Amino acid sequence: MTNQQQNDFSKWYIDTIQKADLMDYTPVRGCIAFKPDGFEIWEHIQDEMNRRFKETGHRNAYFPMLIPESFFQKEKDHIEGFAPELPWVTEAAGEKLEERLALRPTSETMIGHLYSDWIKSYRDLPVLINQWANVFRWEKKTLPFIRTSEFLWQEGHTAHVDEEEARHETMQMLNIYKEVVEELLAIPVYDGQKTPSERFAGAVDTYSIEAMMKDGKAVQAGTSHYLGTKFAEAFDIKYLNKENKHQHVHTTSWGTSTRLIGSVIMVHGDEQGLVLPPRVAPTQVVLIPVGPWKKNPAIMEKLDELYAALKVKGIRVRLDDSDQSPGYKFNEWELKGVPVRVELGPRDLENNQALLKARDEADKVSVDIPNLIERIEEELTTMQTRLLEKARAFRDENSHTNVDSLEQLKQHLTDSTEKGEIPGWILAGWCGDDACEENVKNETKFTTRNIPFNPPAEKSTCINCGKDSKHTVWFGRAY
Amino acid sequence: MTNQQQNDFSKWYIDTIQKADLMDYTPVRGCIAFKPDGFEIWEHIQDEMNRRFKETGHRNAYFPMLIPESFFQKEKDHIEGFAPELPWVTEAAGEKLEERLALRPTSETMIGHLYSDWIKSYRDLPVLINQWANVFRWEKKTLPFIRTSEFLWQEGHTAHVDEEEARHETMQMLNIYKEVVEELLAIPVYDGQKTPSERFAGAVDTYSIEAMMKDGKAVQAGTSHYLGTKFAEAFDIKYLNKENKHQHVHTTSWGTSTRLIGSVIMVHGDEQGLVLPPRVAPTQVVLIPVGPWKKNPAIMEKLDELYAALKVKGIRVRLDDSDQSPGYKFNEWELKGVPVRVELGPRDLENNQALLKARDEADKVSVDIPNLIERIEEELTTMQTRLLEKARAFRDENSHTNVDSLEQLKQHLTDSTEKGEIPGWILAGWCGDDACEENVKNETKFTTRNIPFNPPAEKSTCINCGKDSKHTVWFGRAY
Ligand SMILES: [Zn+2]
Ligand SMILES: [Zn+2]
Repeated sequence: MTNQQQNDFSKWYIDTIQKADLMDYTPVRGCIAFKPDGFEIWEHIQDEMNRRFKETGHRNAYFPMLIPESFFQKEKDHIEGFAPELPWVTEAAGEKLEERLALRPTSETMIGHLYSDWIKSYRDLPVLINQWANVFRWEKKTLPFIRTSEFLWQEGHTAHVDEEEARHETMQMLNIYKEVVEELLAIPVYDGQKTPSERFAGAVDTYSIEAMMKDGKAVQAGTSHYLGTKFAEAFDIKYLNKENKHQHVHTTSWGTSTRLIGSVIMVHGDEQGLVLPPRVAPTQVVLIPVGPWKKNPAIMEKLDELYAALKVKGIRVRLDDSDQSPGYKFNEWELKGVPVRVELGPRDLENNQALLKARDEADKVSVDIPNLIERIEEELTTMQTRLLEKARAFRDENSHTNVDSLEQLKQHLTDSTEKGEIPGWILAGWCGDDACEENVKNETKFTTRNIPFNPPAEKSTCINCGKDSKHTVWFGRAY
Repeated sequence: MTNQQQNDFSKWYIDTIQKADLMDYTPVRGCIAFKPDGFEIWEHIQDEMNRRFKETGHRNAYFPMLIPESFFQKEKDHIEGFAPELPWVTEAAGEKLEERLALRPTSETMIGHLYSDWIKSYRDLPVLINQWANVFRWEKKTLPFIRTSEFLWQEGHTAHVDEEEARHETMQMLNIYKEVVEELLAIPVYDGQKTPSERFAGAVDTYSIEAMMKDGKAVQAGTSHYLGTKFAEAFDIKYLNKENKHQHVHTTSWGTSTRLIGSVIMVHGDEQGLVLPPRVAPTQVVLIPVGPWKKNPAIMEKLDELYAALKVKGIRVRLDDSDQSPGYKFNEWELKGVPVRVELGPRDLENNQALLKARDEADKVSVDIPNLIERIEEELTTMQTRLLEKARAFRDENSHTNVDSLEQLKQHLTDSTEKGEIPGWILAGWCGDDACEENVKNETKFTTRNIPFNPPAEKSTCINCGKDSKHTVWFGRAY
């Protein structure tokens, strides 16, 4: 973590996204505008997710954004969970509506209603549908990309003949999320199960992938829910099985959102601002002429040639031939997180060389021009891996497995503050009692992140009450 | 036009989209659910549009869906045009809002507000941004895909240094729309300028592409607006030019929507239901085993092989090995508009042949299996062209250039009804007076479609008043 980040992480974050031109505030409370460089990160995430969703048999669809109030009443836990955050349409075309319409916070209810019509027989199953959409949760505290009143997401909604198949789907989608977040965004995650208090409103089981930001706080980067027959019962989604008997379907839902954009910034950014993994960077390579390049047309000729060659390779390249000084340009493109910078001046050209700078490394390296394209391609690949490994090392370093009681946790927090370190997360035992979880939260703001599938250790006693633990759980502060 | 279509075109349309499983109604007035086969048509349109937008330097972004009421007040024509159709959010998270928020019918106002911040100098121009989004217009009469309360669209919003550049952009985007609609959807369009009464609310000039459906009615398939400095003045969007003087930018906006899905159905559909141009068909080829194929495993082996070979070529293929009869399957896939069907039975296999049926042709043809892949690829290409040419012939046949007075138009309508023909469109002169346009509309429901750039004839007298015409205009009934 850098000084600026340490002093005031929120300020560093806001500065970084504004200097990188990723978003803008708007006069509508908690609603941001996604500027092209911010939105393109989302487009790369969409492309990768869509590819994997389709490979596993899912298809996209689109459902109405407005949901009748009565739909929410049908699943008790669901309305309790979402009611406090809903915006309502009450008038349209000059008339008061008979029933209020909510702006969707998620679409289980509308989709449940429709699936009850679409599903009649086992031949109609499984239904494997995903939707890309805007959703609304009128949050009190907002933070660009991470928590906004309107955000963009995908929500998968599937229906299956039985629990086994539905649970398999739930896990399959969590695994896809883990792969995309780790491989595309270079963000390592812990996958595991949420505790009951952190479950999705209406789910039987919720699973998540959890990512650690550079301030040690957690972002829930994706969730996948096994909904059992709860929504099927609420919305009467039944099918005729092979024995000619009516059965409720078992449903799942799963989602990731534009908070992934926020996560990539908070995981990789540094003192100079944004650092983007090559695979999601809107600009992957920037070419900058240096020295008295205007007097030396061979420089721009060579850069034009390089530009064209990189384009052909499908690399997202920009050539900055503006009138600004090289220093100004270097800074500008660093703020934007561009992975690779290539500088070319008269002396470089004489030596048939160029300078290459990776955004996350301190030194420039000289590269022979004939090798340059290959070297750039290689750097984009190695930087992608390097960022993931750096983030993994950081996360592991700040994942503590030696904190076993509330007293030790408090001591750990005091020590961290004194040393100017982040508290990170702790792996601790939990007896399964909601009250223990609640007490840890009230005393330390540490909440349960998830019960990891592959914990680095097993914990035998509850961090709060000291009784035998049922689960080994990640605890941490969360966005 | 087929019998069913002629008897009741609306019924034919609704039957067709329901049997093809493209959409479903929902309990929210005028809001439909786009089912996967309907939505995938939109995805193909999006891909093609995105490719062309990006090639011409545009980038995608995302703006808030909710727009403060005060924003609409800033451009007088704009609020007059849209106020009657707006739905309003008046409460959120249990509290009444201080200012009502409209669900966007279009985003000129929100974007104008933001551009006034983003644009400071000529160096910031042009701004070339597009958004894919849901929009709302609370319409009285709705029709799936064609006119719904919520629909999906793209809206481009650009800002330029001067009128010339902005007008160039306006035309460039109209041309892109024409190309995509003709090449991808196989729908021929007339491009031209809208009359003032049909202009977008707040535009200086509106241009459109107009498509003729099989019932002779028009769908405005895309519009592109030169907004002049009207929104720049309303939202104070100024830049410092090279001479250090503040200037208003010139803006454009342009849009196409999911009504293109409705258009493709109404232009190509026939007695058997949906007919989809190969380039937008979710399934391009369906393979169906016929005869006693279950006793003859070589048939499925051959079909599996074909399936894999077509997949590798990037062709969207399905293999229907369900237990239904061949006749049932033929009908099912015809209803879905699948362009090419391949049948393979024991006797075909003996002769090393298969039967190929194009959706829009009456006869099946025998094809030697070694040539089958090539023949299928060829058929997909020729069918795409054939559908465009068929639609063009139909449109031209129903574009009348011999109707020159209101009396003649009324006679034409009477004659058409008597002959059981569609009235189509007429090309007629117009003096430029709104009252003449209005009178034609009141008397015949024929409205001005556009003033075509390339009219098949020039008309010298106004269809209504008989005075000298200023413009030669397409008139027709419209959706
Ligand atoms: Zn306990
Ligand atoms: Zn006239």
